[in-house]
Amino acid sequence: MAGKRGTVVTPWEVSGEVDYGELIERFGTKPLTPDLLERIGRHTGGLHRHLRRGVFFSHRDLDLVLDGYEEGERFVLYTGRGPSGPVHLGHLVPWVFTRHLQEAFGAELFFQFTDDERLLLLPGFDEAEADRWVFENARDVMALGFEPSRTEFIVNTRHPREVYPIALKIARRITSSTVRSVFGFDGGSSPGIMFFSAMQAAPCFIASERSGGRVPCLVPAGIDQDPYWRMTRDVAEKLGYPKPAQIHCRMLPGLGREAKMSSSIPETAIYTTDPPETVERKIMNAVTSERVPGSCPIYQYSYFLFEESDGRLSELAGRCCSGEVGCADCKAELAGLVNPFLRRHQRKRWEVRGLVARMLS
Amino acid sequence: MAGKRGTVVTPWEVSGEVDYGELIERFGTKPLTPDLLERIGRHTGGLHRHLRRGVFFSHRDLDLVLDGYEEGERFVLYTGRGPSGPVHLGHLVPWVFTRHLQEAFGAELFFQFTDDERLLLLPGFDEAEADRWVFENARDVMALGFEPSRTEFIVNTRHPREVYPIALKIARRITSSTVRSVFGFDGGSSPGIMFFSAMQAAPCFIASERSGGRVPCLVPAGIDQDPYWRMTRDVAEKLGYPKPAQIHCRMLPGLGREAKMSSSIPETAIYTTDPPETVERKIMNAVTSERVPGSCPIYQYSYFLFEESDGRLSELAGRCCSGEVGCADCKAELAGLVNPFLRRHQRKRWEVRGLVARMLS
Repeated sequence: MAGKRGTVVTPWEVSGEVDYGELIERFGTKPLTPDLLERIGRHTGGLHRHLRRGVFFSHRDLDLVLDGYEEGERFVLYTGRGPSGPVHLGHLVPWVFTRHLQEAFGAELFFQFTDDERLLLLPGFDEAEADRWVFENARDVMALGFEPSRTEFIVNTRHPREVYPIALKIARRITSSTVRSVFGFDGGSSPGIMFFSAMQAAPCFIASERSGGRVPCLVPAGIDQDPYWRMTRDVAEKLGYPKPAQIHCRMLPGLGREAKMSSSIPETAIYTTDPPETVERKIMNAVTSERVPGSCPIYQYSYFLFEESDGRLSELAGRCCSGEVGCADCKAELAGLVNPFLRRHQRKRWEVRGLVARMLS
Repeated sequence: MAGKRGTVVTPWEVSGEVDYGELIERFGTKPLTPDLLERIGRHTGGLHRHLRRGVFFSHRDLDLVLDGYEEGERFVLYTGRGPSGPVHLGHLVPWVFTRHLQEAFGAELFFQFTDDERLLLLPGFDEAEADRWVFENARDVMALGFEPSRTEFIVNTRHPREVYPIALKIARRITSSTVRSVFGFDGGSSPGIMFFSAMQAAPCFIASERSGGRVPCLVPAGIDQDPYWRMTRDVAEKLGYPKPAQIHCRMLPGLGREAKMSSSIPETAIYTTDPPETVERKIMNAVTSERVPGSCPIYQYSYFLFEESDGRLSELAGRCCSGEVGCADCKAELAGLVNPFLRRHQRKRWEVRGLVARMLS
C-alpha cells in the first residue's frame, strides 16, 4: 500500500514520510473528532496528552465501545508484544496510553506475548531466548504501572489451552488465500505463520467466550497495524461477537528520522535498558530537522513521551522555529528528560521481577 | 496418485481395486519380509495373526526400531482418531494390532484425538459434539485392552500445552506450498488445517522432547495414510530426531465391497455400538463375491478380525471356492462371530467409562 509520495505503511514495513490524514482515508478508519474526544474526556477526567496532542488520532468503533460503557457495559483492552529483543521507546507509546485507559475505565487488559510468531519467523531464535525476552519485556510492561489484578499475560506457547480453541474457531472461517493477501505471505511461508494470524486474533474474543456474552475489545496500536485487524473484524461478525475496536497512534520516529523507531537499526532506537551514556550518545548523534520541530525526532520524543506540559512543549517548538535554541542544546535537554525517566523505569523493572514471574507462571 | 486400473489411494480418498504390492512400489515403502517377520516373532512370542496373514504388510524403518529395541532402547507407539462419529470395525484393525505391540514390547502409546482437525473441516460440527465423540471413541480404544499406565491421550484442543510448541518447531521447517501439495489443500483451505499437519506430526517427537534424547516412534496405520508421514520424516532429520517409523496395514473393505470401510456410507460400515439386529441386517445386505473369498467382505472380516484360527480360515476359504457353503450361510456365520465380539466390546465400553474420563481430564 504505497501512499502519495512513495510512502509505505504496512504492518511489516513503514518507510517514507507518513501523512497520517491520508492514512485515515486509505485504511478507511475514522478520525478522533473533537466530539469523540470530549466524550472520552468526560470519563477520564480530562484528556490524556496522547489525545490532546493527536498522538492517538484515528479509530474504528471506539464510539460503539463508549456507547456500551455509558450504558454500564464493560469492555476489555488487548495489546501485545513479539518477544525477541529489548523494548524501545517506540513500544512504550501505545502501552503508556493503554495503561491510562486501564486506569480510567477500570478495564481488564489481555497482553499477548507472540513467542510463537517469533519462533516461526526468526531463524536461529529458540525457546530459551523467547522465554528470556518474554520475561524481560513483561518487566517493561509492568514497570509502566499496569494493575496486576486487571492484567492477564498470554504467552502463546505456554497458555494455548484457551487461545488455541478460539483460534480454531477463527481459522475455520478464513481461507489461506485471505491470510496470504492480508499478511503478505506466499507459498514459501510456514503454515504456522499463516495460522498465527488466528492466534493473534483470538484474545479479542476471550472475554466474550468466558462470559458467554458479547464483551467489546479495544486494541490500542500503531496505525500501521490496522490491516491485521480487518480480518478479525470480518470474522467477529461470523462468530457473533463484537468487532474488535481500535484506537490508532502515530509512530514514534527513529533517531535517524526513520518514520518508525525500529530495532533493526539499534543506534536509532533508545532501549529502556540503555545506560545514560548510551542514551546521550544516541541522542547526540540523532539526525535533527533544524527549525522544523514537526519532523525532528528530538522534538517528537518530548511530544510523544517526555514533556507533560503543553505550554512547555509550545515553548520548545517556538524556540526551535525561531532559531533561539540550537539542536545541540535541544538534544542535551532531551537527554536530561529521558535519562531520569529511564532511571525510574529501570528501578521499577527491578522491583516487578517477582510479580512478573508470578504473572507469567 | 492413480494406480494401474484407475485405483485411487490417498489419505483422503480410497477407491477402485487396491493392489497392495503395487502400493509398496508406488509409495516407496518396504515389504515386511519373512526375515523381518521372524525377527518380530522372536520378541512377541509368535506372530500376531495380522502379521501371519499379511494384514500388516509394509513398513518404513521398522528394522531400525528393532535394531534399537534389541540393543535395549525403548520406542513409543503413536496413533489417533478424528473424533467426529462412531468407531467402526475398520478403525479397530490398526488399534487391535497397536494394542498387541504395546503388550509385546511394553511400549508407551500416544493416542491423539484430532478434534481440532474435525472442527476445522466439518461445517456445523461444534465443540460439544467433538467432546462427546472424544469420550465415546476413547471408550472404544480402552475397551480393546490398552494398558492405562502406558497410554496417554492427547486431545488437541485440551492438551495443546505440549503439542503446540512441538508443532511450531515442525511448522517453521516446512512451507505452505509443501503442505498444499502433500495434503491436497488449496487457497480456499483454512490456514488452520494447513497448520494442523504439524499438530498431527508433533506426537512423533513427544518422547524425544521429554527425554531430551532420540526415542523412536512407530506409527501403525492404513497404508493410505503413508503420505501424511513423509513430511514428518523429512522434518525429523532437521530436528535431529529419529524419523517416525511406520507399519502399514491393508484397509478393511466396506460391506458394499468398497475398498475401505467408511462412515460416509453408514449401511456398509459396522459400528462398535450397533445392536445385533442392525449388524445382522447390514451383513445380510452385504455385497459378496461368490467363490472368490479374497474379494468378499464377509470373508475379509473373518480374515482381519474375527477368526483367530488359521486352519478354520482356510476351511472357510475352501468351502467358499468349492461352492460347498453359499453366501447366506457364510453371512449368518459371520454375524454369529461379530455379535458376540460386539457384546463383549460393548460391555467393556461400559466398564471403562470412569477410567476414560480420568484419562481425558
